[in-house]
Amino acid sequence: MIAEILSIGNELTIGQAANRADLLLVTGGLGPTPDDLTREALADAMGVELILHDASMRQIEAYFQARHRPMHTANRNQALCPRGATPLENTNGTAPGIRARMGRMEIYVMPGVPREMKTMFEQCVAPCLPPPGERTISQKTLKSFGMSESEVGQRIGDLMTRGRNPTVGTSAADLIISIRIHARGATPQEATTLAEADAAAVRERLGIAVFGAEDDELQDAVARLLIEQQKTIATAESCTGGLIVKRLTDVAGSSAYLMQALVTYSNESKSRLLDVPADLIRRHGAVSAEVARAMAVNARRIAATDYALSVTGIAGPTGATPDKPIGLVYVGLSDATDAVVKEMRFGDTLLRHEVRDRAVKSALNLLRLRLLKAT
Amino acid sequence: MIAEILSIGNELTIGQAANRADLLLVTGGLGPTPDDLTREALADAMGVELILHDASMRQIEAYFQARHRPMHTANRNQALCPRGATPLENTNGTAPGIRARMGRMEIYVMPGVPREMKTMFEQCVAPCLPPPGERTISQKTLKSFGMSESEVGQRIGDLMTRGRNPTVGTSAADLIISIRIHARGATPQEATTLAEADAAAVRERLGIAVFGAEDDELQDAVARLLIEQQKTIATAESCTGGLIVKRLTDVAGSSAYLMQALVTYSNESKSRLLDVPADLIRRHGAVSAEVARAMAVNARRIAATDYALSVTGIAGPTGATPDKPIGLVYVGLSDATDAVVKEMRFGDTLLRHEVRDRAVKSALNLLRLRLLKAT
Repeated sequence: MIAEILSIGNELTIGQAANRADLLLVTGGLGPTPDDLTREALADAMGVELILHDASMRQIEAYFQARHRPMHTANRNQALCPRGATPLENTNGTAPGIRARMGRMEIYVMPGVPREMKTMFEQCVAPCLPPPGERTISQKTLKSFGMSESEVGQRIGDLMTRGRNPTVGTSAADLIISIRIHARGATPQEATTLAEADAAAVRERLGIAVFGAEDDELQDAVARLLIEQQKTIATAESCTGGLIVKRLTDVAGSSAYLMQALVTYSNESKSRLLDVPADLIRRHGAVSAEVARAMAVNARRIAATDYALSVTGIAGPTGATPDKPIGLVYVGLSDATDAVVKEMRFGDTLLRHEVRDRAVKSALNLLRLRLLKAT
Repeated sequence: MIAEILSIGNELTIGQAANRADLLLVTGGLGPTPDDLTREALADAMGVELILHDASMRQIEAYFQARHRPMHTANRNQALCPRGATPLENTNGTAPGIRARMGRMEIYVMPGVPREMKTMFEQCVAPCLPPPGERTISQKTLKSFGMSESEVGQRIGDLMTRGRNPTVGTSAADLIISIRIHARGATPQEATTLAEADAAAVRERLGIAVFGAEDDELQDAVARLLIEQQKTIATAESCTGGLIVKRLTDVAGSSAYLMQALVTYSNESKSRLLDVPADLIRRHGAVSAEVARAMAVNARRIAATDYALSVTGIAGPTGATPDKPIGLVYVGLSDATDAVVKEMRFGDTLLRHEVRDRAVKSALNLLRLRLLKAT
């Protein structure tokens, strides 16, 4: 039914498109500045004038009031709407959308800011779209960590045969291997049943390498386990500079398990905040298994938590030595029974943010496996 | 010269495209799993067989050895190359690219992983492309914070007139307003001169709201100022959960100014690590100007730094009260002379990650303005 979705620049002639499709979805160009011309272009294509819509004006004013911010006169333009068209309420920003009709064409104009557009699409556009046809698709994604794409491919290769229904494909991004299952069926139920059967097969073949589904990240899996087992955690980070605790607190409700986090970036702060002996750092270097272990053990003791994670490494681009290349990272995990340290070598061609990302994922996965009693 | 760039799925018939263009750039489908079919598709289109390329095989083996990881047999497939084609070295991963010729068409196949693709494009593809034509374009982006898009539009509206060269446009994303300047000239120098003149005009009109250019983020501007002035910083975060220190340490060389960072997520850790009196938290709440001030002042004292930043707020989706809605955030900055706290109300329709992002940007900007002696 959607003949085409056009992401428009300021040059779109809406009239041209109007002759070709039943439904036109337009995003962007509804801002308050002179280069935002979608309202004008639409009015022009419809051959009508723009009129100020009072209710939209009041909503824009209320938006600024609620934020204790002054409204600029340019924002008045956002309440303009082609005569005969209907404004669509924007619950996330100042720019109302527009619903209009030209001949047999239904037009929806939404803001370009993704979150405003998505909400408006769900609230104002999707409910008006025709229902999907009989033939339906069910899509599932499983996510795994700790197994190479090659090994995943070997374990589920028969499911990946071309022409099979569902189709199963893998993709690798930043150490996470996603397994995408795409099932077609005559009914939604048939498609879902097929997809679920393959998902169960993939889970069985990959075991604990699968940490979640769809939008899950490793921190979501860790959060679920910590909450289920009512355990608490503290962190002590050096090269990852707060990225572990940032990810742990991406999850709403993280105050249930995250007690405190220290970023001891300098050697001195490692000693002062974490009681890592200066002598230990001098003997082994700040990037060493010994220091990672001391960081984890002491962070757990100081915070009085069930677990503590630590990371120290060379994120680059500076700081490498012949012995300690970029990408060398030690990840430590301490609990009531012991402390383990893993040495990771991610390779010296990685960029700083890639080394940090991989170090954090490795740390979170170490904790995940411990919570699953797998290490 | 680039007649088309195709981002291919597994269904591309390369032979079809080969009749229509001089240059074909292909990305993706070079992985080790059965759904990676680009090598096969290309060999098929060329009417030749795939042969194992010894040097590629040795490079793939070396890649795994350097990372202390076992190589899977499926990775051998990545050393396959159509007869008559040339492998392109992948310095960032296991999949070599391929250079091939079909009739008058030059074909470059690159991995889909963006970082591998970009490096290969720069090293192996770009040097072989024909030089750009006479008529050239110069593009500049300036980035501002703290001024609404409407106000930016009012100050530079005359530069945004349609049909003018350069064209100047604005876009807003997560509180940052970018100003894009796009100049056309008969020579590269003419285009650059035009773009630079507009960039200077924009900087003059927007003043200290402009914090950087191109890929700069607020933390890059802060890092430059801290290094220039040889100042140090510590942080104390609650609702942002490490995102401030994560961003500060995104910048290589951040150990020059970042001494330590505390994420005091629980009330108890605020008292234990930061000496925030339990009584102060009880009277005003953890999300209050008073607690933000105490966090900043004490973090600075404990770390013995020139500055300390603090944040406490309601990131949501839980934790809000009638008095303290989602999006209410207090940002504190302490230095040798005083401590300031700013109350921010970002609006209760924002998602958790949006509140956190805006809180961090506001904190970094507060420090930036202080370093510029503007507050």
